[in-house]
Amino acid sequence: MENTVFIFGHKNPDTDSITSALVMENLEKKLGNENVKAVRLGNVNKETKYVLDFLGLEEPELIEKIDDGQEVILVDHNESTQSVDNISNAKILKVVDHHTMNFVAPYQLYYRTEPVGCTQTVLYKMYKENGIEIDKNIATLMLSAIASDTLVLKSPTTTSDDKKIIEDLEKISGLKLETFGVNMLKAGTDISDFTPEQVINIDSKLFEQSNKKFRIAQVNTADLDSIFKNQSYFEQAINEDIEKENLDFYVFAATDIINSNSKIISLGNDAPVVERAFGISVDNNTAMLENVVSRKKQMLPPILNALNNDVNL
Amino acid sequence: MENTVFIFGHKNPDTDSITSALVMENLEKKLGNENVKAVRLGNVNKETKYVLDFLGLEEPELIEKIDDGQEVILVDHNESTQSVDNISNAKILKVVDHHTMNFVAPYQLYYRTEPVGCTQTVLYKMYKENGIEIDKNIATLMLSAIASDTLVLKSPTTTSDDKKIIEDLEKISGLKLETFGVNMLKAGTDISDFTPEQVINIDSKLFEQSNKKFRIAQVNTADLDSIFKNQSYFEQAINEDIEKENLDFYVFAATDIINSNSKIISLGNDAPVVERAFGISVDNNTAMLENVVSRKKQMLPPILNALNNDVNL
Repeated sequence: MENTVFIFGHKNPDTDSITSALVMENLEKKLGNENVKAVRLGNVNKETKYVLDFLGLEEPELIEKIDDGQEVILVDHNESTQSVDNISNAKILKVVDHHTMNFVAPYQLYYRTEPVGCTQTVLYKMYKENGIEIDKNIATLMLSAIASDTLVLKSPTTTSDDKKIIEDLEKISGLKLETFGVNMLKAGTDISDFTPEQVINIDSKLFEQSNKKFRIAQVNTADLDSIFKNQSYFEQAINEDIEKENLDFYVFAATDIINSNSKIISLGNDAPVVERAFGISVDNNTAMLENVVSRKKQMLPPILNALNNDVNL
Repeated sequence: MENTVFIFGHKNPDTDSITSALVMENLEKKLGNENVKAVRLGNVNKETKYVLDFLGLEEPELIEKIDDGQEVILVDHNESTQSVDNISNAKILKVVDHHTMNFVAPYQLYYRTEPVGCTQTVLYKMYKENGIEIDKNIATLMLSAIASDTLVLKSPTTTSDDKKIIEDLEKISGLKLETFGVNMLKAGTDISDFTPEQVINIDSKLFEQSNKKFRIAQVNTADLDSIFKNQSYFEQAINEDIEKENLDFYVFAATDIINSNSKIISLGNDAPVVERAFGISVDNNTAMLENVVSRKKQMLPPILNALNNDVNL
C-alpha cells in the first residue's frame, strides 16, 4: 500500500462523498494513475448502501487518520474541519468539489470546483473532457449522487448542468431518476434501528465561521411526525454534542422529501440566531422552514448573514 | 458598462497576468458570455508591451478599485493581498490560476488551478476541452506568457504540460520560442528610464504568512552589474516601502536570465531569514543565489520554511 493516494469525501459521508471517491478512483486509473484508492471517513448511510447493494459494490475502506505526508485527493469537500483529522499534514494532490471554499495550500495543486448541484456533475465533465467513456456502473453512481444532492432535481441547488447530465446518465444506466432516485431517497429515510445520536450524525457538518462554532445536521424523512415524537431524545443527543465540542449552537433539520419543507430543532447559547436568520419564531426549540430543503443554499447563507449582522452591530 | 464582468490578473501585472485576462475575455465570449472585459491593476511592463505592440493590441484599461458587488473573474492569482484592494466586497465568479492557494469564498464558484508553469497552460486546456479554436493572436499571447513565466522553459517551474503545449502554440503562431521568447524577455530587462522605485515595483508581491508581512520583488536582467552599481538607490526605495507598509522584511531579486542565477538585496528587521532559508551569508545586504530563478518554486518555499522553523523553536 506504500505511496497509495487516498481519495475521500467529507466526514459523515453522504452518497455524493462515497460515490465521488469511487468515480474519481475510476477516472484516475483511466488516466493512468493506478496507485489510487477510494476510502471513507465514516459510516455508509442507508441511502448510499441502497446504491452500493444495487450495483453489488463493497463499501470503500474506512480510515480514521492518515500518516504525515500521505498523498490524498479530496472530493465533495475542501474545508479542513470536514476532512480527515490530520489533513493539515497531508499532501493534497487534487480537489474536486462543488461547495463554498475555505482552502489554503502552500504548494501548487489541481483544484476544480463549479457552482453546480453535485460533485458528480463536475466529474462527468472531466470524463467528457478527457474523452473517457462513462460505463453503466459509473453512470449509476453519478445519477445516484445527483439524485441525492438535488433531491431528484427538486432542490434549489439544482442547476441546468445537473439536469442536462441526468438525461445522459439515465440513458447510459438504463435507470429512471423518478423511480430509482426516489426509491434510493426513501431507503435513506429509514431510521427505525438508529439511536438519536446516530440520527443526528447521519449528515452533520461542523462550521467555524464569524467567530462561531456550530453544526448543521440534516436528515431526510418521508414522515416528520415520527421524528418529532422523539424530540426530547434528539435534544439530549444534540446537547451532549454541544457540550463535547464546545459549540455555540446546533441546528438539526429534518427535511420532508415529499413536501419539500424542513422542521428544525435549534439548541445552544446562540440558538436564537435562527429566528433572525429565517424571520421565524422558535417554539419549544423547533420551527418549520417552509420550502427550505438545502443546507448549502437555504440554511447556511441566512445563518452566516445573521451572524455577520450581529458582528456589525 | 453596467453588469460588465471584469477579468484581471494580480497587481504589478506580469505578462501572464495581462495576457491571461485578454485570453480569458476571448474564451468567455466564445462561450457566449459577451459582457466581460479584461482590465489591469497596474502598469504594463516592457516585456508585456513588446508582446502587445507585436500584435498591435491596446493595453487593457487600468482599474484601481471596484464597486461593492462587482462581478469579477480572477486570473493568475487568488490571494486577496495580490488582488484589487476591495476584492472582499466583490463577487468572484471564476478563478483560473496556477499558484499556491489561500482562498475563501462564502458562495459557490468556478475555480480551476493546476500545478503547471503558467496560467495560459490551464487556459489552453480549457479551449481544447470546450472545442474552441485557438487563433494566431491567442496562440501568440499564450506562448508569450509561458515564455515569460518559465524563462523560455528553463525555469524549474516548467512542467511537461507547458512543454507539450508550446509545440502546438509555435505551430499556430508561426513563432519560435527561442527567438520571439528571448527577444521578449530581453525587451523586459530594459530599465534604463526607470527610477529605482519603479524597478522594485515591476514585479513585487506582498505575502502575509507565518505572522510575517513581506515582499519578494523580482526583476529580470541580462546584466547584473548595471543593477548593483545603483545598489544604494534600490536600498533607499526598498526601505521606504518597508516603512510605508510596515514590512518585516523585503527581498529584491535581480534574476540573470542568461546565466540563470539571482542576486538579492535583503532588508528589514527579519532580513536575516534569507541566510537560514538559503544557507548563505549575506554581505552588504546582498547575496548570490546560484541556479535560483523562480520566486514561486525556489524563493518563497525556503523562506516560508525558515519562518516556520522560527515559529517552532
